[in-house]
Amino acid sequence: MDKQLVTNTIHEAGLDDFSQVTIRDIAKLSKQLENLSGEKFIHLEMGVPGLKPSEIGTEAEIEALKNNCAQTYPPNDGIPAIKQAASRFVKAFIDLDIDPLCCMPTTGSMQGTFAVFTTLKIARPEKDTVLFIHPGFPVQTTQCEVIGLKTLGIDIYNYRGEKLIQKLEETLKNGKINSIVYSNPNNPSWVCFTDEELKGIGELATKYDVIILEDLAYFAMDFRQDLSHPFQAPFQVSVGKYTENYIISISGSKAFSYAGQRIGVTCISNKLYHTKLKTIEERFQVSEFGAFMANRILYTLSSGVTHSTQYAMAAMMNAASDGKYNFLKDVKVYGERAKFMKEILLKNNFYLVYDNDLGKPLADGFYFTTQYPGMTAVELTKELMFYGVSVFPLNTMGSLQQGVRICTSFFHDNLRDAFAERISNFAKDHPIK
Amino acid sequence: MDKQLVTNTIHEAGLDDFSQVTIRDIAKLSKQLENLSGEKFIHLEMGVPGLKPSEIGTEAEIEALKNNCAQTYPPNDGIPAIKQAASRFVKAFIDLDIDPLCCMPTTGSMQGTFAVFTTLKIARPEKDTVLFIHPGFPVQTTQCEVIGLKTLGIDIYNYRGEKLIQKLEETLKNGKINSIVYSNPNNPSWVCFTDEELKGIGELATKYDVIILEDLAYFAMDFRQDLSHPFQAPFQVSVGKYTENYIISISGSKAFSYAGQRIGVTCISNKLYHTKLKTIEERFQVSEFGAFMANRILYTLSSGVTHSTQYAMAAMMNAASDGKYNFLKDVKVYGERAKFMKEILLKNNFYLVYDNDLGKPLADGFYFTTQYPGMTAVELTKELMFYGVSVFPLNTMGSLQQGVRICTSFFHDNLRDAFAERISNFAKDHPIK
Repeated sequence: MDKQLVTNTIHEAGLDDFSQVTIRDIAKLSKQLENLSGEKFIHLEMGVPGLKPSEIGTEAEIEALKNNCAQTYPPNDGIPAIKQAASRFVKAFIDLDIDPLCCMPTTGSMQGTFAVFTTLKIARPEKDTVLFIHPGFPVQTTQCEVIGLKTLGIDIYNYRGEKLIQKLEETLKNGKINSIVYSNPNNPSWVCFTDEELKGIGELATKYDVIILEDLAYFAMDFRQDLSHPFQAPFQVSVGKYTENYIISISGSKAFSYAGQRIGVTCISNKLYHTKLKTIEERFQVSEFGAFMANRILYTLSSGVTHSTQYAMAAMMNAASDGKYNFLKDVKVYGERAKFMKEILLKNNFYLVYDNDLGKPLADGFYFTTQYPGMTAVELTKELMFYGVSVFPLNTMGSLQQGVRICTSFFHDNLRDAFAERISNFAKDHPIK
Repeated sequence: MDKQLVTNTIHEAGLDDFSQVTIRDIAKLSKQLENLSGEKFIHLEMGVPGLKPSEIGTEAEIEALKNNCAQTYPPNDGIPAIKQAASRFVKAFIDLDIDPLCCMPTTGSMQGTFAVFTTLKIARPEKDTVLFIHPGFPVQTTQCEVIGLKTLGIDIYNYRGEKLIQKLEETLKNGKINSIVYSNPNNPSWVCFTDEELKGIGELATKYDVIILEDLAYFAMDFRQDLSHPFQAPFQVSVGKYTENYIISISGSKAFSYAGQRIGVTCISNKLYHTKLKTIEERFQVSEFGAFMANRILYTLSSGVTHSTQYAMAAMMNAASDGKYNFLKDVKVYGERAKFMKEILLKNNFYLVYDNDLGKPLADGFYFTTQYPGMTAVELTKELMFYGVSVFPLNTMGSLQQGVRICTSFFHDNLRDAFAERISNFAKDHPIK
């Protein structure tokens, strides 16, 4: 890219020091530069799925619309079809038993976590803090800020295995934590917790009476194992094997490339669903945790989820559980892209930031993290702009490490040569001291 | 109905005194009685539209799905098509000028009011109370309870015209009111505010710096006038003519019979949208009221609204503004039903509770309120059960009057004779003392 043009454009956007840059700033800046220079950027900054949505979903949705599902209000906690499909899917791919009653669709996983945090805020007033295992999705922290919950974070970079459990327990001892939140595989680092780590987390949840909110947005995308066979090991690992204090969030956005329709399911453990709480009984005339979340919180948030989209999600989940729809086959391409990009980067002096699962190499998937020696995350993000590559710095995601996030979703095969060339040029221009 | 059977069923449901009855209890009870007795109830308790959804909506939605709208995230504040369509619709049918930027789709009007209340809670911490003009939709009060806002209510029964404005001003003087909420036409009473009243409310909003949240769920359903001609008087009346401190909420559920897809639009006055607030700038890195609501609140609530449904709503609004789709023609049947039912009831000793707009008879529409002499609302609700008629008592809707709400949506023509007979039998069995 033309150096002067990039410098001027960054300056004009008021982003000279880049330290407060947001993902939208980067997207906007790179598009401006494309328009001004006529050169295409390689967009690695966004976390947006790049595949065609599942036809099983759209067909089910079209049929539901033809049957006039638009007329009648959906139930607050979901139509029976999606509740049953979610319960079955959870059994098929995680090997957990959760009753249909306890599985609820939400307007995207975003609404699911908002509902969970709101429920906790009201139902557990004595515990006012959410503990995030970082790095993570920054909007969940914003949700807590909007709702009025405090947050704490632990960066897993220095804490894996037994050290993670110890560090979590130190924090839990303050008695103020109502929940622990993480995504698995992790956005942005693609770290996957081991069964041992999940066991430790689960035991802490029981011991300290906190709820684990397990965000499975990138469901079963640990491609080191084939998790695609329903009702058959190996399964997506989950804390649900080790505690009853858990809530699982499964998104249609990434697994089924269905982000546009805003659909996810929130599955509450049977025991937690039926837990009675005095804090809500008098104020809201309902006593069970799950019923409160369904009939008060989800009701007041949007009185249920778009009717037709519930049919789509039910159909996709059922087809997957039937073994008729291998959704992981579609998204496996993300892993192949990550593998290629990592090779190019490592050949050109880059290194991986979060680079192992307790000694084992990370899986290749939707995201990974990388950095160039002798630079800060912000410097690297800005410098890569000059080579027509847009990435996202980790600092806004609760990470204490210097590094950037690479998202593979828009990295189509025809970009391979350009990527290799640009990264190689970058390395030549930035010799390691 | 068999007296003993009804008494036993009510007793078994633990609802002997009926004072804490909810709408769901009544729906459940009447369905149980139908199953046990084999007799059909006349269901007048629910506020659920009973018409086929607009085909313009479903067709636009199906087309959007075929074009793979399911793949990509919708913008937080709506696709351009719906923003433009809403702005144009507001001009066509209310004669208000609101920029497309300031019109945002929400997952039902329910999400719209939740978002507004949350925005107010954070942006106006010095004013912590929402003032409801009652009777009204009880779930909006629950929303405030969930969000942590205080509420106050004024029953319009004794306060119309100048008296309403005086009463509102008395309350506003406490300095704690952040907003005034009402629906127009009113659920459940079908009271419609006059232009004079709206002028008074608007002037108070400006004087006391409070926001008017005008819920137009039953858009233009004041059938005393023909409000169906776009860009042509008479228009749906609105407080937006008299203040810039307003937010309008338009639902797809009733006007377009599109409740199942959960779509509404929230339109913020241009001036309010661009109002800068210090309270949010530091905490949320955004300073304008409307931008905060769009990019922080709506983002964290569900990251936007189901993509295909936005196309549906845009198509329906545009067709209406084009004069190609007379949505009021479809829903006019509600008014005809109300007229018939009122006649039967009045012939049989019933009276209307909320019965006039400053001397003028009320319009006939989706709801009305009625009562039988010498009974409480709860007694009447319970007694009508014995005649196979289910209604909803007003006490849960913030009304201080004895009365019940009648919803006309499921009252199909083939129920006319049965209704007349049952009401006549009721009157015979309950002679006026």
